[in-house]
Amino acid sequence: MKVDGKHTRTIWVEADGWSIGIIDQTALPHRFTTVRLTTLEEVARAIASMQIRGAPLIGATAAYGVALALRADASDEALERACAMLAATRPTAVNLKWALDEMVAAVRNRPREERVATAYRRAAEICDEDVAINQAIGGHGAKLIAAIVANKRGPAQVLTHCNAGWLATVDFGTALAPIYVAHDQAVAIHVWVDETRPRNQGAALTAWELGQHGVPHTVIADNTGGHLMQHGMVDMVLVGADRVTANGDVCNKIGTYLKALAAKDNGVPFYVGLPSPTIDFSLSDGIAEIPIEQRAADEVATVSGRTADGRIETVRLVPEASGVANYGFDVTPARLVTGLITERGILAPRRDTLAAAFAERAQASSAAG
Amino acid sequence: MKVDGKHTRTIWVEADGWSIGIIDQTALPHRFTTVRLTTLEEVARAIASMQIRGAPLIGATAAYGVALALRADASDEALERACAMLAATRPTAVNLKWALDEMVAAVRNRPREERVATAYRRAAEICDEDVAINQAIGGHGAKLIAAIVANKRGPAQVLTHCNAGWLATVDFGTALAPIYVAHDQAVAIHVWVDETRPRNQGAALTAWELGQHGVPHTVIADNTGGHLMQHGMVDMVLVGADRVTANGDVCNKIGTYLKALAAKDNGVPFYVGLPSPTIDFSLSDGIAEIPIEQRAADEVATVSGRTADGRIETVRLVPEASGVANYGFDVTPARLVTGLITERGILAPRRDTLAAAFAERAQASSAAG
Repeated sequence: MKVDGKHTRTIWVEADGWSIGIIDQTALPHRFTTVRLTTLEEVARAIASMQIRGAPLIGATAAYGVALALRADASDEALERACAMLAATRPTAVNLKWALDEMVAAVRNRPREERVATAYRRAAEICDEDVAINQAIGGHGAKLIAAIVANKRGPAQVLTHCNAGWLATVDFGTALAPIYVAHDQAVAIHVWVDETRPRNQGAALTAWELGQHGVPHTVIADNTGGHLMQHGMVDMVLVGADRVTANGDVCNKIGTYLKALAAKDNGVPFYVGLPSPTIDFSLSDGIAEIPIEQRAADEVATVSGRTADGRIETVRLVPEASGVANYGFDVTPARLVTGLITERGILAPRRDTLAAAFAERAQASSAAG
Repeated sequence: MKVDGKHTRTIWVEADGWSIGIIDQTALPHRFTTVRLTTLEEVARAIASMQIRGAPLIGATAAYGVALALRADASDEALERACAMLAATRPTAVNLKWALDEMVAAVRNRPREERVATAYRRAAEICDEDVAINQAIGGHGAKLIAAIVANKRGPAQVLTHCNAGWLATVDFGTALAPIYVAHDQAVAIHVWVDETRPRNQGAALTAWELGQHGVPHTVIADNTGGHLMQHGMVDMVLVGADRVTANGDVCNKIGTYLKALAAKDNGVPFYVGLPSPTIDFSLSDGIAEIPIEQRAADEVATVSGRTADGRIETVRLVPEASGVANYGFDVTPARLVTGLITERGILAPRRDTLAAAFAERAQASSAAG
């Protein structure tokens, strides 16, 4: 997607042909800065400190981390050490584990002198595969948006929660891919952006990336979506997913479930954009089976932002004596989901539909179980 | 309710017998400071700058503003000027208009030399009447909480949104009154406090006043309530109201409707605590008829709080180039409301029930219509 009018991915090989460039996402939306990564250790630090985040981008970055490690030392021991160090940066990220396994499989049986080139090639493929999946999601979803615009005056009004955008992937995003594809096809669109407390990924990241690419949007408090839907101001809700069960329950950023309830109550379609690896065929009851991470109280009790004179400050909102709870995700039951927008098309949130569309994965899971 | 262990109202006559003390609510939760008001102008400034807020407390403060004005000049012209100045401080506050009318009615036909004493007496009555209404709401609602505790292990888990507490009234609050009464009766209770973006009245005010009175509570992001209800962690939702229609639709702080949907979806009772003047018998369709105020974008785009070294700072969260919308309230349809806790008991949100309980007001409205 575009930054300052120039097409940019979230990760790239620098002009020197080997070092890796990323955007420091911790400085967004207030400052756009890029970081050059030259060693395994720098990559591990960038992931752990959340300079890059989002499951697909974490995987892609870790893949280049392996390439940089092999550049310094192409031995089996170095490969193993690199994977262990990278895997520890974000222990719960499924794509991270997957990308490291892919890298090991690609280089393991190669002679040492070929390993570096092979690693860079496989890392580039992982990036391109992510972009291809997201473009496919975008293509399928953009048809839904075009159909909305064909049946009304004015732009399609899409509400999104959190950041399942370009910044969480190598390019295009997952939930935001249909929005970018529709916008690039000149389909009129306006996005309501939930600020997404407590970490404000909507206000900080989604608003920034939509703005950079020129997509009209408006930031709202998370409390607002129900009111907008009651008044016919939302045509579609479109969110991402951290995990989807075999029967279509959707685990996503905390608060997603409340928007799904409002969509149902007002006859607004509720769609989820996701790459198929997000589907966990071993699970069938999202609310009962998916453990919900509790995060640090400070994410709720304090907020960081830019002061009028340009400094980044953290301020406390909650009395010192008050307890704080911070649940990271919630589960939207399949009955509230209109459709899952995957790289293989738009699917009903039902066990048989998902298993038919991704037969190879559903079977592998049932064999493993 | 208690502050630093001492019973305190939100407004009082100082020891000198004439000047008025208030809490500067703009400094909460970070600093507890009181302000002494000695003139009409100081009262008007305190209301306009939101040092005091909440419909019942605005009314009570304005009443004392009239008393202070008459102390300086007890003429009819001074009385008229005082009412005009106070009415302009918060033009949409219904209680403000009501309190000023009450004060005029009390002093108008009195000789000048009696007006000051009469004004102080009527202002004190307005305060005491507010407290009596809130205690009645508290008594009715506390029975619901006691019934919950009787049927489970552990404390009653109550979720509230925004601040309909002690700080919005002279004492006890409206939605929080049942919580304080139950707590004072040693009924075990724990309150989930929605932080209530964008103005954070939950995090700043509700958490502070519950903490000062010793009521166990936990602050959560507004996104969290649905997850808690899915997991059986909420026994009751209890909120206030800015306006209730004749058929029981509830206009309250933006986001209330989303919690009502989650309560319905999970079989959690959803109650509204309100003094009966909040019911507007001239309205019968809340969503269609109640205009929703749009407020300043900065309330969403920026947040104020305390830095680690104790300064109060305002920080920006949203990119400068992004649009922001800020709707202040939403409407929860009566079908999602379990009951309205009023000073005359707990009522079903139905036209006939409300009209029967407040026949004098329902008839006055239909005569006016």
